[in-house]
Amino acid sequence: VIARRAIDLSVYLLVDPDALDVEMLLEEAIHGGVTAVQLRQKSASTRRMIDDARRLRAWLAPYGIPLIVNDRVDVALAAGADGVHVGQDDMSPEDARRLVGRDMIVGLSLWDMSQATSVDRAIVDYVGIGPVYPTTGKLDAVAPVGLDGLAAIRARVDVPAVAIGGIDATNAAAVIQAGADGVAVITAICQARDPRAAARALADAVHAGRRAGASR
Amino acid sequence: VIARRAIDLSVYLLVDPDALDVEMLLEEAIHGGVTAVQLRQKSASTRRMIDDARRLRAWLAPYGIPLIVNDRVDVALAAGADGVHVGQDDMSPEDARRLVGRDMIVGLSLWDMSQATSVDRAIVDYVGIGPVYPTTGKLDAVAPVGLDGLAAIRARVDVPAVAIGGIDATNAAAVIQAGADGVAVITAICQARDPRAAARALADAVHAGRRAGASR
Repeated sequence: VIARRAIDLSVYLLVDPDALDVEMLLEEAIHGGVTAVQLRQKSASTRRMIDDARRLRAWLAPYGIPLIVNDRVDVALAAGADGVHVGQDDMSPEDARRLVGRDMIVGLSLWDMSQATSVDRAIVDYVGIGPVYPTTGKLDAVAPVGLDGLAAIRARVDVPAVAIGGIDATNAAAVIQAGADGVAVITAICQARDPRAAARALADAVHAGRRAGASR
Repeated sequence: VIARRAIDLSVYLLVDPDALDVEMLLEEAIHGGVTAVQLRQKSASTRRMIDDARRLRAWLAPYGIPLIVNDRVDVALAAGADGVHVGQDDMSPEDARRLVGRDMIVGLSLWDMSQATSVDRAIVDYVGIGPVYPTTGKLDAVAPVGLDGLAAIRARVDVPAVAIGGIDATNAAAVIQAGADGVAVITAICQARDPRAAARALADAVHAGRRAGASR
């Protein structure tokens, strides 16, 4: 199990194993520089979700890459995942922490400033902030916060933050300079012709953003 | 919390709180004779499911009626429900028992004879057998087992059994005579013009079936 405080958010990949050959994608993406993986499934049965999570957990463990399960605390617990990520419509972080115990990672999505004020670092290990840019998928109904919104929300929380929503290698450095500790992506890697190169370009941009931030 | 071995399966009502005024329905149904309630939600967010389960749990507790949550062990645990019911596509009963601990009720759906052979009474507190008759809804894709199938499956398990699928006051006594300890219904109560009278008619039929069985 990955230690709660040691999670590396640099390049955080969300995958839906129903949609693709996930092991082949992960093999490439991890060699490119992905540092954390979130399993996000919406339509599969609970049995299937647990089977997929268990398989991915066993597959990721030798790389030291944590597996975080989106929304489903039951799936995370049954599969022995490293953590769970809850959104504003999911189980509250307080309930999630109570159920998963002290050792598992709990991440929380923040869409706006009002949600940032109640983040308790005894409960929440990292936050996901976004969407930063317009995006398709789950977050398409939420107004993008932009770089200024990201910086403002990030300044309100004292846990690590990963930015999400429309992020790719061209804007990742700016996102890091705005205060994010990493970037969460789906499309930029899953839809890439070369997932390894896409992950590497994102990792390079994250590191460039950190250097630029450090030299200011 | 309702003791695992004390659950009364006589008239077991499945409700979806998204679809109706559930407290008003339950008030009537409980006065008519409903003895157990299962919360079955498919489309709601996890946050909403937990809120609904918590509210129903508090509402049912004074009546001594257990609240069982379908499929979602996370929701059952967060809301402090009395139990969880898992089907063949849900979390395995072994995983569910491991997560909920020794005190919560675990129910398991059986669709056919092959599934009956592995039921472990140290893990599973009751089974649901069905569909007995053709039905709409979740079970419409599964072949009905009929009264003979119900009797055969029931004879293979040594935990209490509730029958489900197309059961109403006209056939409930026959279902009990075939070996069921109770009847699980949705339509027969939720779609009834008078849910209290419908629950009472079911309870009367269950008791008539038991008397007929005892006098054979």
